[in-house]
Amino acid sequence: MIQNGQIAIQVQRGSAIARIIGENAAKYDEFDNTVNMWVFEEMVDGRKLTEIINTDHENVKYLPGYKLPENVVAVPDVADAARDADLLVWVLPHQFVPKVCSQLAGNIKKTAFGFLIKGVHIKDNGLELISQMISENLNEMRVYALMGANIAKEVAAGNYCETTIGCSDEERGALLKKLFEVETFRVVVVADEHTVELCGALKNIVAVGAGFVDGLKLGDNTKAAVIRLGLMEMIAFAKSFYNNVEVSTFLESCGVADLITTCYGGRNRKVAEAFVLTKKSLEELEKEMLNGQKLQGTQTAAEVNRMLKEKGLESRYPLFTAIHKICFEGEPVTEFITCLHNHPEHM
Amino acid sequence: MIQNGQIAIQVQRGSAIARIIGENAAKYDEFDNTVNMWVFEEMVDGRKLTEIINTDHENVKYLPGYKLPENVVAVPDVADAARDADLLVWVLPHQFVPKVCSQLAGNIKKTAFGFLIKGVHIKDNGLELISQMISENLNEMRVYALMGANIAKEVAAGNYCETTIGCSDEERGALLKKLFEVETFRVVVVADEHTVELCGALKNIVAVGAGFVDGLKLGDNTKAAVIRLGLMEMIAFAKSFYNNVEVSTFLESCGVADLITTCYGGRNRKVAEAFVLTKKSLEELEKEMLNGQKLQGTQTAAEVNRMLKEKGLESRYPLFTAIHKICFEGEPVTEFITCLHNHPEHM
Repeated sequence: MIQNGQIAIQVQRGSAIARIIGENAAKYDEFDNTVNMWVFEEMVDGRKLTEIINTDHENVKYLPGYKLPENVVAVPDVADAARDADLLVWVLPHQFVPKVCSQLAGNIKKTAFGFLIKGVHIKDNGLELISQMISENLNEMRVYALMGANIAKEVAAGNYCETTIGCSDEERGALLKKLFEVETFRVVVVADEHTVELCGALKNIVAVGAGFVDGLKLGDNTKAAVIRLGLMEMIAFAKSFYNNVEVSTFLESCGVADLITTCYGGRNRKVAEAFVLTKKSLEELEKEMLNGQKLQGTQTAAEVNRMLKEKGLESRYPLFTAIHKICFEGEPVTEFITCLHNHPEHM
Repeated sequence: MIQNGQIAIQVQRGSAIARIIGENAAKYDEFDNTVNMWVFEEMVDGRKLTEIINTDHENVKYLPGYKLPENVVAVPDVADAARDADLLVWVLPHQFVPKVCSQLAGNIKKTAFGFLIKGVHIKDNGLELISQMISENLNEMRVYALMGANIAKEVAAGNYCETTIGCSDEERGALLKKLFEVETFRVVVVADEHTVELCGALKNIVAVGAGFVDGLKLGDNTKAAVIRLGLMEMIAFAKSFYNNVEVSTFLESCGVADLITTCYGGRNRKVAEAFVLTKKSLEELEKEMLNGQKLQGTQTAAEVNRMLKEKGLESRYPLFTAIHKICFEGEPVTEFITCLHNHPEHM
């Protein structure tokens, strides 16, 4: 049915997933053997990256040390890569999405559908799911998402992990599971697509809170409470702003599992901890620790806060609100826990 | 209504909770001002412990450095302590429960009810909830339970945390919440009492699995997957062996929050990690690391396995089963993850 499992990627994580897709495309009759992988062309030690990938079968720049299956073919032109594809797998940072959509428009099958391995775009007026962004920019394409505790290096190393696919179409869901699942990468398909994508964004806010607790040295009880209250606010937020949200999806890898790894590892936690310990501004820390990149958790907190404010819901979300106020309105971080004393979850 | 909030305790954790109860008993009209605390008499630096507590208001042996409220009165005789109580708070290791019950029988109010801050007793033929154990041994007393991410030292230090009370009686639930809740110790009451108690036992099995992952150095993805699959098996087990189990209770502090702290800190995780790294036997490690005490997680795994085997359900619980086999049937720990390749959660 799928003639061509097709990938548009530039990033390290894309190669990790391409290893899996390549293996399954070769193994199952449902998929065309060849997987085209769009690779933004660049020179590495005097050779083109696509050439290196197609002869040495290794993305030496973004996933060195791991072989790609030989049926994964690097293609430097995105329209060429996608032309005959029935399925387009997106592993692109959101800022490249509009441009790639315009390059693809008119050059792809009308029946093609999309699959997304990346979360939510933060706009000036709220959150935008990247699936919606692609859909709006490209033929109203249907786009499903995959999220979970899936650090790319560990996926590539074949360490056991789980992931969640959001797909309300049963037949396509089964097909996507077949394409992405290998022995050490286990897939659960759920129907509430938006929830899966949302989890990927909201967890970063909670991780900022977890970082505050670490910085304040408040201990394991408090950290667990903050993670749990964060989870409850994620659920309440999803239910309040989206339809057909299932609580059970928050028990999947995209929910509780990804939240845990993000709150114990990850850059949001780390920068938030440094925010407490160093008393430097977020801007300074972003410059020092992230090479000037914006921190996702704080940005998401700001946009979520705008949405909550609009609906008069701030007091229902003391944790999200406190994180926003501490990051952007000068509230002292030492007041973080005081904000949680009367949480609606305890009423 | 409650004439006397009464506590039978010997352990450190008891004093942490007595600080809270004392404060609230003094504050609210519903409770008698005096809280009797049974303290097993012992000599400390030539003075009786009860005398030290009643004059210096500090349990210097089990919670040094923290003052007890003056209305908490240490009583060396358990029957004296409990005689006029309407509520008995149990913070006793299970092995002392039958003896204390026999000392109380005939000496307490017939209308008294119980409250329990400790989990599950592991018997040779399965798990026994301590609430049931007390009930069977003492007037069929109704006993409710409190569980959560509540490390005693951090509770005593006043670090913010949450807890869960299981009580299906609405009026009593509200009363218990009032007695146990302070600004930094937040209480949620749920109706499915057994689930609350069960969580406290089953989480220790999962923590053994988390320790294996740490010992095998499998990374954050795998650890998150093991914690999540553990949670799903906890839910399935509770539903399979008990009635009226609510999935939402696993999202409370007694569920996901306590599970997280136990899988990142705690002795079950630690000993399991050492089991992988040192290749010593569990007995040796218990001798070296726990002063000869049995590890709760492995014991619980064994009894849960007996219950699963009896019902022919082992294959539905690959994580619980693998942990049991590794601990007691010579399965190599390196096979731990292989056992999870085909988990029913991924079907």
